[in-house]
Amino acid sequence: MIYLDNSATTKPYSEAMDTYRTVSEQFFANPSSIHSLGGKSESLLSKSREQVARLLGVDDGEIVFTSGGTEGNNLAIKGAALAYRSRGRHLITTCVEHASSMNAFRQLEEMGFEVTYLPVDHDGRISFEDFKKAYRKDTILVSIMHVNNEVGTIQPVREIGEFLKTKPTTVFHVDHVQGFAKVPLQLKNSGIDLCTISGHKFHGPKGTGILYVRQGTVIAPLLSGGGQEGERRSGTENLPGIAGMVRALRMTLEHEKDGIAHLSDLQAQLRKGLSGIENAVIHTPVSGAAPHIVNVSLKGIRSEVLVHALEKDEIYVSTKSACSSKDSGASDILMAMGIPEEEAAQAIRISTAFENTNEEIAAFLSALAENVQQLKTVMR
Amino acid sequence: MIYLDNSATTKPYSEAMDTYRTVSEQFFANPSSIHSLGGKSESLLSKSREQVARLLGVDDGEIVFTSGGTEGNNLAIKGAALAYRSRGRHLITTCVEHASSMNAFRQLEEMGFEVTYLPVDHDGRISFEDFKKAYRKDTILVSIMHVNNEVGTIQPVREIGEFLKTKPTTVFHVDHVQGFAKVPLQLKNSGIDLCTISGHKFHGPKGTGILYVRQGTVIAPLLSGGGQEGERRSGTENLPGIAGMVRALRMTLEHEKDGIAHLSDLQAQLRKGLSGIENAVIHTPVSGAAPHIVNVSLKGIRSEVLVHALEKDEIYVSTKSACSSKDSGASDILMAMGIPEEEAAQAIRISTAFENTNEEIAAFLSALAENVQQLKTVMR
Repeated sequence: MIYLDNSATTKPYSEAMDTYRTVSEQFFANPSSIHSLGGKSESLLSKSREQVARLLGVDDGEIVFTSGGTEGNNLAIKGAALAYRSRGRHLITTCVEHASSMNAFRQLEEMGFEVTYLPVDHDGRISFEDFKKAYRKDTILVSIMHVNNEVGTIQPVREIGEFLKTKPTTVFHVDHVQGFAKVPLQLKNSGIDLCTISGHKFHGPKGTGILYVRQGTVIAPLLSGGGQEGERRSGTENLPGIAGMVRALRMTLEHEKDGIAHLSDLQAQLRKGLSGIENAVIHTPVSGAAPHIVNVSLKGIRSEVLVHALEKDEIYVSTKSACSSKDSGASDILMAMGIPEEEAAQAIRISTAFENTNEEIAAFLSALAENVQQLKTVMR
Repeated sequence: MIYLDNSATTKPYSEAMDTYRTVSEQFFANPSSIHSLGGKSESLLSKSREQVARLLGVDDGEIVFTSGGTEGNNLAIKGAALAYRSRGRHLITTCVEHASSMNAFRQLEEMGFEVTYLPVDHDGRISFEDFKKAYRKDTILVSIMHVNNEVGTIQPVREIGEFLKTKPTTVFHVDHVQGFAKVPLQLKNSGIDLCTISGHKFHGPKGTGILYVRQGTVIAPLLSGGGQEGERRSGTENLPGIAGMVRALRMTLEHEKDGIAHLSDLQAQLRKGLSGIENAVIHTPVSGAAPHIVNVSLKGIRSEVLVHALEKDEIYVSTKSACSSKDSGASDILMAMGIPEEEAAQAIRISTAFENTNEEIAAFLSALAENVQQLKTVMR
């Protein structure tokens, strides 16, 4: 099997699964129980939080464990908008966000908030100038993804963070789900107040995630109750999931530098190989993009057809975002980039992980070339 | 170890953990990915949903997988209140709900909803008459727990369901987290529109749960995004958690009848044993209570002192609900039942599971008697 759909989800590390099981059985008590068995669980939870905080360069109290990226984005966006609604009603985001951000904003619009959706250029990138023009005195929240999940484009979140440092009445959220451990991002002193990370995108257990909440930033909880996670996310903690995620996080960051260099190498190999395939048009920009995603249209072949042709060789790539892959029609993101609908409907996304090899990429390229050739013959 | 804190959380079944691991590794693809590996995951997800639906006697489309009881209660309560807010603004619940329901109602009050909190009698039970008096034409939501998490009292949810069957403009939510597989509850044709169940309370993985949403009942999603779970709960599905939970659910329901009889037997043993301990006052009512909880005050000894004394013998019981056990002060629930604060602060909760044995209960009773004797001597 050659798995090249790592932006949809990754295969969990075996070590993370070992941790999950051990913690499930040996630390099964509720961390909120006051007896010593609960205390043992609580202590492991605290250690997990400390480790994450240290690895991300932030404070323990700034880490909120969630059930994943969708919860993180919803909690950050709705939570901040609701907490600061008395300050203003204007929100800024982009037109290429993940569905979990986009639909959170749609719900806020229904509740009376005003949202500016920044447009993107042909590379899928917003402009800092557009952002500054959109910014108003009553802007209470800005939410921008770091790395686009379909094309890999990096958004200017650092510049925006610098700008927002001087605007204490605006909360800045970054959806870092695709960027984490692919495009490093400093959180401390960055102007970023909220940052979403998802566990299953870096070989951690599904149903786990992290929301960074800078000290002093208030969010209204979506899940209220027992007051866990510093009143920001109630519910009995999924301690096995948390510990498994922390293990995967540690493993990922240990190999981050080499891993990113390797991803860049695979990406160069993909670009070179694709340039030799007739009618292949790469949408991922050459500069300012993450190293693990290549989005490409094979003109004349609908993406679904190609995905299903490749799966016969046990090669797995995707059409667009998994979270919108069952909607009919072409990618909204590619169309926002000005790519014609027909071409957008011919795009596939190849997304790699540290574990993918040059041999796998070579095998993929050869299978792709073969399938493209065959499909073209059939279609003629 | 004698673990008698099963209302806080249970030890996961080894088989559920096996399923978790297998699914994590062999069905790791995103069910939303359109390639065949994603299709394999989606197919397992559908089968899991079908199994749950069959076991609960409802339809597939009525099952929403959540991250647990707190999410289920928040989604049901806030989701229904927001979805039906144009119909009316009045909500009914009780003053003895779990923190995750109670705090959801507090948030709704801040948003302009009016909430009636029904009082309870000395057994911790609301009266059907009080409920009928509180019910109004503009009541859009009624939310009642089936079994109280601290004392085990069963609420008249069947009667209320019958009454609400004739009121199509009111949604009825039941928090069945403590009642599941302890006090059977029919969902189909019961007048119940929403019902919360938590996976880790019946030996399933943490971070898993089920919300039953009767066909035709609309809830505004708390987590919007990719539209998973029929647009009611977005986010990449925690398939290993879901499959592990379904395995635990099946195992639990296979032993339900014998298990409940066994719990009743353990409860009778506990009652008999406690009656021989001086100054023990049982708060769990003799009739109309679940079989797995006994709440008892040992007069003269603060509950924390007793919990910590028992843990030295590796016996684990709790003070009150784990989700409020770190608040200082006595149980709000016992005080709502009219129990004086001092006595409420001396209450411990003993909660059993099918796996507990008569020998464990005997050992617990003997350790309790010994500790009570010693502590009294020390305190005099």
